[in-house]
Amino acid sequence: MHPTLGDLGEEAMLDHFAALPRSCSTLVGPGDDCAVIPGPPARHDLLLKADALVESVHFTPDTPPTLVGRKALARVVSDFAAMGGRPDHFLVTLALRADTPWIWVTALYDGMLEAAREWGAALAGGETTRMPPPGANVISIAASGHAETGNAILRSGGRPGDVLAVTGRLGNSFASDHHLNFTPRLAESAWLSRHAAPTAMIDLSDGLGKDLPRLARASGCAFTLDLAALPLSPGADVARALGDGEDYELLLAIPPDRWPETAAAWPAAFLETPLTAIGRLLASDDPAATHIPVAGWDHFNSL
Amino acid sequence: MHPTLGDLGEEAMLDHFAALPRSCSTLVGPGDDCAVIPGPPARHDLLLKADALVESVHFTPDTPPTLVGRKALARVVSDFAAMGGRPDHFLVTLALRADTPWIWVTALYDGMLEAAREWGAALAGGETTRMPPPGANVISIAASGHAETGNAILRSGGRPGDVLAVTGRLGNSFASDHHLNFTPRLAESAWLSRHAAPTAMIDLSDGLGKDLPRLARASGCAFTLDLAALPLSPGADVARALGDGEDYELLLAIPPDRWPETAAAWPAAFLETPLTAIGRLLASDDPAATHIPVAGWDHFNSL
Repeated sequence: MHPTLGDLGEEAMLDHFAALPRSCSTLVGPGDDCAVIPGPPARHDLLLKADALVESVHFTPDTPPTLVGRKALARVVSDFAAMGGRPDHFLVTLALRADTPWIWVTALYDGMLEAAREWGAALAGGETTRMPPPGANVISIAASGHAETGNAILRSGGRPGDVLAVTGRLGNSFASDHHLNFTPRLAESAWLSRHAAPTAMIDLSDGLGKDLPRLARASGCAFTLDLAALPLSPGADVARALGDGEDYELLLAIPPDRWPETAAAWPAAFLETPLTAIGRLLASDDPAATHIPVAGWDHFNSL
Repeated sequence: MHPTLGDLGEEAMLDHFAALPRSCSTLVGPGDDCAVIPGPPARHDLLLKADALVESVHFTPDTPPTLVGRKALARVVSDFAAMGGRPDHFLVTLALRADTPWIWVTALYDGMLEAAREWGAALAGGETTRMPPPGANVISIAASGHAETGNAILRSGGRPGDVLAVTGRLGNSFASDHHLNFTPRLAESAWLSRHAAPTAMIDLSDGLGKDLPRLARASGCAFTLDLAALPLSPGADVARALGDGEDYELLLAIPPDRWPETAAAWPAAFLETPLTAIGRLLASDDPAATHIPVAGWDHFNSL
């Protein structure tokens, strides 16, 4: 049988974590009280983000642990993409039942570390504690990254008239395993930052039906949404595109004079990730505003 | 009756968090995809640390939530002190049952924010998700800070002959509520960094019986420990000082030629927090090495 965390004990776990591969940019990684890393490059600000995955909410006991690890990291990396930034270092905080198989933990790390290499992030440390049974296992990721000083793309910069565009296709994330194996839109974000002068951006984690009103509200705008234009994932309908959540696509506002050239120049390399205009920001009192009929995912009210 | 998180819904919670006070050093705080903050000051490195408190492990359902919040932040700040650094910004990740009273959450934040002000840290963001009942509520804190480049005090720099010293008194942390209301040793750490040339430092979270061997091992040393010299908290004995854990005092190694002047110069302002020599680091093969009979806290084996 596979040994559990309780069989193994904390010290053996810490030894394992301290021996994990790290980046040469990490001055002090797992195994000390804090990670010590260089600050962001010159003319860049520091980005910080933390997030958690909870068993039976974001994954099931049957989800392959490498995919749980990948998802835990990918959700955070998606937030860096949504700022027009890049991830650098991450910390892993685990609250796990003592009956958790050790092999589940090592596979979780395998998934995180492979994803981190893919997206340019390095493990810098973490902490592990006990979840009293029968509580759900929790994986929390905190990450640092960087964005050019003054050029982080906030949710709040949108202006009336801006074109609303989304990357990729929406809906059906849970039926298709997209919520587990999606690729954060780092490359698309970097291209958009350079070529489209986005005024506001957000990643679609709770569903367009919740995240679009958030972006509009943060920008002090209303919006109009062309439901017929929504790029749908295979098997999804408009309700799913609005309400399913966990698309991890980018929603952004682009000045109207930049939209035609942006759409025309969208790189061939991104062809499996279309860029689609789905509406516009409006003045907050514009009577043409769309009110979305379907709520997205509410962590506390939905279930 | 007090409304619960389920009554309130996620959007109302997010609005509340986005309106919390923030520091002027935070460029973008709660309410966007990432926090945007300036990098560390010139000639300083970035420190990162994450940690979690779990209900029924680190606090009970009856613990006043302001003290839970204070403890969540204080544990992380203690790790910055253990590096000879300072905390700057923190993120709060919550996994909470929907039946959690909203007033518990606001009191938790009150405790965190008051502690943060006291120790010079600012709230920069966070994330909240659902814990399926009857799972334990989890509060995870991630924080950034800074230490002078090259001068962060690691666990690994101790040398044979160094004097081992601890701040404060050890043991009985749970009987006395010390584990809830302790003050991280930031001031003592700053003084020691300037005046004692510590070669290695760690904060005592799992108990001297576990944390001293960790520091010694990271430094490639054995150690001798004078059990009769241990500074005991009221009501504690040697076994408790070694094994209880959650003292959050500093254990450090000081070059032997620096110890007399360090002990003599220990500021009057710290008089309620004595600095006590408790042993020495030894060469790893020294036959005089102490082997500690009592294990400290093991998160997975102890219970």
